[in-house]
Amino acid sequence: MKIISSKSNQYIKFIRQLRQRKEREKSGKFYIEGLRLIGEALRTDFPLESILYSSDLLISDFGWKAIEDGKKKGIDIIEVTRDVFQAFALKEGPQGIAAVGLQQWINIKAIHQPKGLWIALDTVQDPGNLGTIMRSLDGVGGKGLILLGNSTDPYHPTSVRSSTGAAFSLIIGKAGLKELNEWKSKEGVPLIGTVCGEAENYKKYNYPQDMILLMGSEQKGLSKELVEICEGLVTIPITGSVDSLNLACAASIVLFEIYAKR
Amino acid sequence: MKIISSKSNQYIKFIRQLRQRKEREKSGKFYIEGLRLIGEALRTDFPLESILYSSDLLISDFGWKAIEDGKKKGIDIIEVTRDVFQAFALKEGPQGIAAVGLQQWINIKAIHQPKGLWIALDTVQDPGNLGTIMRSLDGVGGKGLILLGNSTDPYHPTSVRSSTGAAFSLIIGKAGLKELNEWKSKEGVPLIGTVCGEAENYKKYNYPQDMILLMGSEQKGLSKELVEICEGLVTIPITGSVDSLNLACAASIVLFEIYAKR
Repeated sequence: MKIISSKSNQYIKFIRQLRQRKEREKSGKFYIEGLRLIGEALRTDFPLESILYSSDLLISDFGWKAIEDGKKKGIDIIEVTRDVFQAFALKEGPQGIAAVGLQQWINIKAIHQPKGLWIALDTVQDPGNLGTIMRSLDGVGGKGLILLGNSTDPYHPTSVRSSTGAAFSLIIGKAGLKELNEWKSKEGVPLIGTVCGEAENYKKYNYPQDMILLMGSEQKGLSKELVEICEGLVTIPITGSVDSLNLACAASIVLFEIYAKR
Repeated sequence: MKIISSKSNQYIKFIRQLRQRKEREKSGKFYIEGLRLIGEALRTDFPLESILYSSDLLISDFGWKAIEDGKKKGIDIIEVTRDVFQAFALKEGPQGIAAVGLQQWINIKAIHQPKGLWIALDTVQDPGNLGTIMRSLDGVGGKGLILLGNSTDPYHPTSVRSSTGAAFSLIIGKAGLKELNEWKSKEGVPLIGTVCGEAENYKKYNYPQDMILLMGSEQKGLSKELVEICEGLVTIPITGSVDSLNLACAASIVLFEIYAKR
């Protein structure tokens, strides 16, 4: 097998370009790095186009087993030199294994009578927050994520890393307000919004079995337009000197309350 | 008043060096940026050495009022040119106001019969997580934070920013395991550890009024040595494919459960 030793190789250039959202959107692909994430992608049978490794850097048995697994699944296995790997690696001191995955967007119209717990996020800005929310949603056995408005990209390397693999198991969709409203009304699944201020205490709300938890952006919370299409609203009372919580923490607090009530 | 127009001015150089932990530790000072944080520091009477601003960048009335407030409090007010401000600013498109604060470490031995809710963190690595935990702790009216082991710095710019000002209102201390154990035993305040795996469900635990919630690092959780000195242990049951939660989310989930029970 030929080893890629040039940083100007077309595929290596492409991998570096996957750092940019524009390139991720154009290609429908994304970059995955590190043993844990690759292991999780393989375990969940997530579609990978290629696995890249550097034999100088990859010292873990788990990593070599992942490459064997990948081969069996028919994924392209590409060996690169240490220099080339370090040229596209995002982490300092990389583990020597990375992959290119195929983004899995679902059109929400194709989902009928969604079961279980979903989350919809409007204009979430921080990829770390988005990934962390996916991690918590997966941690309560949630089904999927719907992104509204001009949200950050769930396939941003920071989102994927912060999700610790939840990005591979959750259903991911996007929608506009109108589309979300039509869909949830047609499918009869209630939207429960989380707001700052006047609403029922999130601890006391009687959450339905199948539902979408809706949260607004880090800066602005839920917009009036979104509040209007909610079947219910909850709030997390806080005290002290801060005026709000981190978005991922707020989402996790409500998700785990819903989970505990089941 | 003289305007600093040179990036090689000694004080400007010093401010840039505050990005490094070594310099923060040596000087006992730290850097604060942005309207919201400066406003919060002033509101809570947090000790500031100086406030720096650029009249070209500062367009907010709230910012100009903050400068007036600072003057009245006897804080050094330093005007700098736009170029100089941008040379030390951490944010792109800065708001034109920053400050140097004085770190407020408390020796835990000086705290007798601590009341209310405290959090102790062992070897927390990520300054964003640390700041976010401070934000949530403040949000439940918590009193203070005790850092154990080789933890990241609560006065790291990212911690301060993520705390949204909680770094100014919480008591902050650090301790070794032995010191923490002696102190909490002497003062009779129970340590409740959060672990993965076998322990009581965090929802069912009967939390005492005055207590320290103890959490381990992002990577390794609570060490055996720390588990041994705990009066109680709780766990957050999770499902799905992820094997743990983000540290700040886990802390927030338990903190808000304790808060709700009061």
